[in-house]
Amino acid sequence: MTVQYKHIGTRRPLIEGREKVTGRTRFVADLQLPGTVYGRPILSPYAHAKITEIDKSEAEALPGVIAVLTAADLPTRDKVIRSRMTATLAKEAVHFVGQPVVLVVAENMMIAEDAVDLVYIDYEPLPAVTNLLTAIEHSSPAVWPNGIPKDESDMGSIHGGGGDDDEATKPTPKYNNIHAENHFERGDITAGFAAADVIIEREYTCNIVHQGYIEPHAAVTVPSPLDDSIDVYAAVQGKFWLRDDLAKLLDLPLHKVRVHSVDVGGGFGAKYGILDGLGASAAVALGRPVKIILSRSDDFLTTMPAPAIHLRVKTGAKQDGTITAIQMEAFCDNGVYFGWAQGWLIGFACGGYYKCDNLQIDVWEVLTHKPPIGAYRAPAMPQGTFALESNIDDMAAALGIAPFDFRRQNAAEPGDPAGNGKPWRTIGFKQCLDALADHPLIANPNLQANEGVGIAIAGWGTNVGPADATCRVDTDGSVVLQTGQVDLTSNSSAFVLIVAESMGVSPSDVVVVNTDTTGAFAPGSGGSQVTYSVAGAVRDAADSAAQQVREIAADMLEAAAADIELIDGQVQVRGVPDKALSLAQVAQNARSKRGGQGPIVGDGKSALPEPSPAASVHLVKVHVDPVSGKVTPRHYVCAQDVGKAINPLLVEGQMHGGMAQGLGFALHEAMIYDENGQLLTGSFLDYDLPQSDQVPTLEAIMVENPSPISPFGMRGVGEPPIIGGAAAVANAIRQAVGVRPTELPIRAEHVWQARL
Amino acid sequence: MTVQYKHIGTRRPLIEGREKVTGRTRFVADLQLPGTVYGRPILSPYAHAKITEIDKSEAEALPGVIAVLTAADLPTRDKVIRSRMTATLAKEAVHFVGQPVVLVVAENMMIAEDAVDLVYIDYEPLPAVTNLLTAIEHSSPAVWPNGIPKDESDMGSIHGGGGDDDEATKPTPKYNNIHAENHFERGDITAGFAAADVIIEREYTCNIVHQGYIEPHAAVTVPSPLDDSIDVYAAVQGKFWLRDDLAKLLDLPLHKVRVHSVDVGGGFGAKYGILDGLGASAAVALGRPVKIILSRSDDFLTTMPAPAIHLRVKTGAKQDGTITAIQMEAFCDNGVYFGWAQGWLIGFACGGYYKCDNLQIDVWEVLTHKPPIGAYRAPAMPQGTFALESNIDDMAAALGIAPFDFRRQNAAEPGDPAGNGKPWRTIGFKQCLDALADHPLIANPNLQANEGVGIAIAGWGTNVGPADATCRVDTDGSVVLQTGQVDLTSNSSAFVLIVAESMGVSPSDVVVVNTDTTGAFAPGSGGSQVTYSVAGAVRDAADSAAQQVREIAADMLEAAAADIELIDGQVQVRGVPDKALSLAQVAQNARSKRGGQGPIVGDGKSALPEPSPAASVHLVKVHVDPVSGKVTPRHYVCAQDVGKAINPLLVEGQMHGGMAQGLGFALHEAMIYDENGQLLTGSFLDYDLPQSDQVPTLEAIMVENPSPISPFGMRGVGEPPIIGGAAAVANAIRQAVGVRPTELPIRAEHVWQARL
Repeated sequence: MTVQYKHIGTRRPLIEGREKVTGRTRFVADLQLPGTVYGRPILSPYAHAKITEIDKSEAEALPGVIAVLTAADLPTRDKVIRSRMTATLAKEAVHFVGQPVVLVVAENMMIAEDAVDLVYIDYEPLPAVTNLLTAIEHSSPAVWPNGIPKDESDMGSIHGGGGDDDEATKPTPKYNNIHAENHFERGDITAGFAAADVIIEREYTCNIVHQGYIEPHAAVTVPSPLDDSIDVYAAVQGKFWLRDDLAKLLDLPLHKVRVHSVDVGGGFGAKYGILDGLGASAAVALGRPVKIILSRSDDFLTTMPAPAIHLRVKTGAKQDGTITAIQMEAFCDNGVYFGWAQGWLIGFACGGYYKCDNLQIDVWEVLTHKPPIGAYRAPAMPQGTFALESNIDDMAAALGIAPFDFRRQNAAEPGDPAGNGKPWRTIGFKQCLDALADHPLIANPNLQANEGVGIAIAGWGTNVGPADATCRVDTDGSVVLQTGQVDLTSNSSAFVLIVAESMGVSPSDVVVVNTDTTGAFAPGSGGSQVTYSVAGAVRDAADSAAQQVREIAADMLEAAAADIELIDGQVQVRGVPDKALSLAQVAQNARSKRGGQGPIVGDGKSALPEPSPAASVHLVKVHVDPVSGKVTPRHYVCAQDVGKAINPLLVEGQMHGGMAQGLGFALHEAMIYDENGQLLTGSFLDYDLPQSDQVPTLEAIMVENPSPISPFGMRGVGEPPIIGGAAAVANAIRQAVGVRPTELPIRAEHVWQARL
Repeated sequence: MTVQYKHIGTRRPLIEGREKVTGRTRFVADLQLPGTVYGRPILSPYAHAKITEIDKSEAEALPGVIAVLTAADLPTRDKVIRSRMTATLAKEAVHFVGQPVVLVVAENMMIAEDAVDLVYIDYEPLPAVTNLLTAIEHSSPAVWPNGIPKDESDMGSIHGGGGDDDEATKPTPKYNNIHAENHFERGDITAGFAAADVIIEREYTCNIVHQGYIEPHAAVTVPSPLDDSIDVYAAVQGKFWLRDDLAKLLDLPLHKVRVHSVDVGGGFGAKYGILDGLGASAAVALGRPVKIILSRSDDFLTTMPAPAIHLRVKTGAKQDGTITAIQMEAFCDNGVYFGWAQGWLIGFACGGYYKCDNLQIDVWEVLTHKPPIGAYRAPAMPQGTFALESNIDDMAAALGIAPFDFRRQNAAEPGDPAGNGKPWRTIGFKQCLDALADHPLIANPNLQANEGVGIAIAGWGTNVGPADATCRVDTDGSVVLQTGQVDLTSNSSAFVLIVAESMGVSPSDVVVVNTDTTGAFAPGSGGSQVTYSVAGAVRDAADSAAQQVREIAADMLEAAAADIELIDGQVQVRGVPDKALSLAQVAQNARSKRGGQGPIVGDGKSALPEPSPAASVHLVKVHVDPVSGKVTPRHYVCAQDVGKAINPLLVEGQMHGGMAQGLGFALHEAMIYDENGQLLTGSFLDYDLPQSDQVPTLEAIMVENPSPISPFGMRGVGEPPIIGGAAAVANAIRQAVGVRPTELPIRAEHVWQARL
């Protein structure tokens, strides 16, 4: 049965679109609060060193300098930190180039910059290990000899304050500098390879990639003039998470840290509050609003990019196309801390792409003296998929089966196991493949010389969490929805459609208010979960408000509530068009009538039992210049199982953006460090973000394969579009010129060399 | 049955007390927003005049002047105004001394002040009528020849834009310049007087009294840099009312006017948004934040004090003390607009003080060329009660019955009619009198020479309106309550007790957040209604949240929800002390468990069917200096029926404040205008606000006579304490020296003269 909606599923322009395209959106850096002072962090120039002296006297003497703060002046990680993201100042040692050591605070940004040059910090360099594959050798120095610092321990000290529990109880490890490991197995991998007619084995390398947001990290904290509470204005994806961290760091009750989410100028998993701890600590210490904006270079040095990953993939298949064994080993470069469960993510998803009885995936998270890695849109999945789908592509070629047909034959379906061995309850690989079967790039690619079409499938578990929402009807008939979300991707532009559907109003009469952390709750805006997690609460809040409207109107119109219908802002008795009220009249009654039903306020809650995984299939057509090896994408099609697109314009935008970023992984982006841990690509001159003229036609095909779990059949949509691009480009190159790329990004010189 | 409470009824220090007594509270004038410009209104020096020319060229040329705005530049009352309070600039004529004519806006306050002197306004004076009793004569000029301007009409024009409907259809009136009239009758007033043994008739005069708040009116409006919405930071008692007016004035949808209520430095009915319309209009016109702070003198000139009232009271009684007739006629000086239903208020309450079969009350609201009057704590009731209770006191003396006994014999009880003829459902005069029967001032006053004890009863209908509230439990176990109230009198310090009671937490773990006008709804903070109106919503929101806690904990503890109890922040199975969780653990589960019950969020609504009237009895002991006539209060006792004091410390504070203000009415305060409508007492040097050393010992006796209507049996408490003081002082003077004061304030020279 297809439900007919009036508003849900319509392409409604984004609420904040006009402000964004006209440059009127205010970001954190645009906030000017009275009495503000400006912080500038001084970053470590060493990958590993002891801090032997900090002389701040000359800087402190500079007129306009408010304070030169060190770890002695501010709360440190002694008190912190669940997330390990919130930066504090290094105390005894530094562990990566870019680690904040001192925070200079001055009356304005220029003075702060001048003062930076007047702070003298002496270091005693210590042995550093910066290369992923070197770090795992037992001959390399240990990044954390006593284990990575625990949540509660002091990461400012040289050796940490004691290792994680699992670290301490671990037997002598196979590799050195391993923080975490994940092992997935099903069937008998040896038997699987024994049964294979063809075995393909290859290694793949992926470089560090930065999220490349346009807005550098910025933080504004305002201490209350009334009490010891603070207001934090943050471009943050997880405001409750940040709030909890700051409360812990500052020893404040939760409600005294009010995080206001400010428009985010690009998140992509990177905006979870790196600077806010420093800014909030300084604001509390100085009793003044503190603003910190990272320069682009500092942002590259001290933030949290996607990890370098080295992978080995070995697959086996029978001549008939049955895949008999999949084996993957991956080493993820964590940098100096934890790895965001990227090992689990690779194993869970990549282990569930294909029907295959015998599987083994081993992932090792490796510590190096580099900045901590962070989440980047579908963490580790572009890399894992690049490796697996390159290998699968080679297998199809070896078996003489068309790559598209080979995927269609083997792609997992509901009931097949994911990487963790549990069956996918719902997964739409087949539906996406079906949607592309007749696409010209498959059915009639019409390739010229040195052109090829690559395909890759891409799966993603997505996330979910509880949320609540409140819906009130105001006396002018407008409907105000309060949520706890961070509106990272214009989720509000979907929610107004849901409310409009329930309340029988125009979406333009729905106002979305995202309250601060004393208000409604929602999970962080990451893991493709926000619209998915919050929509049910929004719908229930609106349905509850609509029911209250029916009951009040029933009294006013002397009819039964069941006979009242809400249409176009009118509240009327079914079949009696004369008996009607405006929604405004009903709200006025509710907010004024003594002994009435009281104001219209509906709340809704959502706590879905599980996420609804999202599949996608990527097709990229490329041209390879045979002289230079230069790869030019010509056309990029992504078919993605979105379950139900609440606002297709919004979903399409998400897909377009993810596809463009996937091309960045494929052909452009890499943070290159030298052997001393010095970043060689710390600006947008050196770091090659794809430009708009380097992105081909993007074709987003929304496949609506409803999830049985969620309201409206929705699925998370944010992350899948980034996953498959690199693999599809690599496979297109193989088809175009017969070269198998094994490193991301794929560089013209490598393609050229491989053709020799 | 007496309900036992753990928190409700405890004397808990006010939440914001520390900030207020240490001077750290931020008021509107303390808000410094970037880019702010400063507005200063130029006020009319004439009570009635035509504006013939405004030359702003010289002022505009002054460096730092942003704009010199007239009615031509800003929206005027063409579009407004339900409340008639929101000031706009005069267009063609002025109608009172103090009416805003021009708004100068400059980069700072000093420049704005300088520019005021450079604006040349020419007026053509017109005949003005400023005296209440002159105005009602048909020979006087009509203030509004075509009737007072309608809500929608243009009050800036000379003759208004058309009269109120009831004005237009009125027959030739008995008096001139009457805006509204109220007539209350029961029984046969002629027969009542015919049956009387004693008749007392006298006239009384009450001068204009100002609310005397410490914080002058101030307004800050910030236009959004994103869209055409505005944020209004207002020290306002009715934020939704203000919001609606501003939206209408500025042609904005309601949600685009976000009113944030800022701490109010004294409201007393005066803070309903006089300046905000001007400030908001200018902010929108100029696209910059605009701040207006009235000087004390301008505040006296242009704001809305309590009316002058002239009253005639005639009562008749039998020798046995039965009151046979009460007749009152009152003329209220509205100034230039409407009169806040003060006529109705006098008649309703004063007509219900006593058992009396024959009653007639006629109240006339009179227009004069003076500032519009406003609401002042229990509007018109100190004046009406002064007149009636003086007369009743003389009657008791004439009958030879002790004043206390005479009241006890005749005071109304439930079932007796109020002034509108409907029976009081609940009224506590008797309970208050009973509570004072053994008080030394009654039982053993021990009076010295020239001392006397006066008594007065005082009743008040109070108000009520619908409200909603939301209650969430955060992951640290704190409880966040959202309401729409303006916390004028620390109502939050009562609400935390209600939430603590329901949720089994400490009141210090309850956080009250008063959202802006896009959030929860509550009636204005006036009419003694806020705690009364909102408490039920607060209780229901907390009860709902508590029930959710029980259900989640029941799952976690594998018990039945009915067996779960919430005590001291713990959630435990009754009788099984080992099976317990902290409230924090339950909230963490609720905000994280997939497939759980979802975040804990309870909403509550309240729409009580009627207010619960509040009675009080006032006893004042005075000393009169026989040489000078100077009256010194020695002791003031008020017994008030509070129904149930949620936080007695808060109620007591309300009573103390009201009693002090009642003494201001009695002995100190008057705004004196000359015959041209010029204010002679426009500063705190000339306007005699009582000083703390002029206030005697204040004894507040809270009588808890539960209302059958409300949660916990509460009643409104804010207004009754101001009502009876003036009457009690007058009656004490009569007892002390035999003089019957007939004018408020009671001046030493009048007492002295009367003794001659």
